Amino acid sequence: MSPVTLEKVSENNFADFLFLVRKLADYEHLTPPGKAEEERLFRDCVADPPRYEAYIGSVGGKPVGYVTFYFTYSTFLALPTLYLEDIFVLEEFRRSGIGRELFRFCRAEARRRGCGRMDWQVLTWNNPAIRFYEREGGKRLDWYVYRLDRNAF
Amino acid sequence: MSPVTLEKVSENNFADFLFLVRKLADYEHLTPPGKAEEERLFRDCVADPPRYEAYIGSVGGKPVGYVTFYFTYSTFLALPTLYLEDIFVLEEFRRSGIGRELFRFCRAEARRRGCGRMDWQVLTWNNPAIRFYEREGGKRLDWYVYRLDRNAF
Repeated sequence: MSPVTLEKVSENNFADFLFLVRKLADYEHLTPPGKAEEERLFRDCVADPPRYEAYIGSVGGKPVGYVTFYFTYSTFLALPTLYLEDIFVLEEFRRSGIGRELFRFCRAEARRRGCGRMDWQVLTWNNPAIRFYEREGGKRLDWYVYRLDRNAF
Repeated sequence: MSPVTLEKVSENNFADFLFLVRKLADYEHLTPPGKAEEERLFRDCVADPPRYEAYIGSVGGKPVGYVTFYFTYSTFLALPTLYLEDIFVLEEFRRSGIGRELFRFCRAEARRRGCGRMDWQVLTWNNPAIRFYEREGGKRLDWYVYRLDRNAF
């Protein structure tokens, strides 16, 4: 396996980040971000404090995957939680340990920043991802996820 | 139903908030916060920016329930999400619309602050809460919730 280099998303590599975000949208058959969404994605990750953080993983100088996360809060522990929002590796670079490097980077950040937990969600039908997370020690919790979309506010 | 008054948690009413947090811990058979957790809960909700926000609902001047929330982020919408962490009403004040007032306050805050979504989780066995959320328009998503605790970092 080639070594993976991680770099925080900033003005310098934002185009690479958008390239990967569009690839994830393709993969999930979702609408890719438009101009307005791209502008907000940029503003919200370079803001102080940022609304989310993003890191690109590269192999041999080529951007091949990324993670995004932010910090939620456990009122039970009275500690922040690192919440992993997206983790994605280009299809042609899978099964080579890049996702594992990205995941373990997040886990190390959770520790470094004094979090009590690291949380995330996985689609119920995504068996390869479920197996990956369980190999990495993730425990499934007995919770249902609920949502109200803006048109229901 | 008596009208519910909502008040943001601050230095002035933090003792009332802790009283309610301890009642929720009793109800869920969880360990109530110790001195260190109480100090962090205070620091983290009055910080700028706060790590979480908390609001107490009172009826006739008596604190009877609370909500806590924070803002996560949808990279798909490029918009913040209001994430409802805790919603709790004292047992003897349930079934009188107080939870509904607290929930609708959060929904209104999500709208007011330009969120694209409001998200939350519910324990899979908590049928009264599930019925409540579905009456309020919440949609269950096909996601599993995963976690790493600090001892697994």
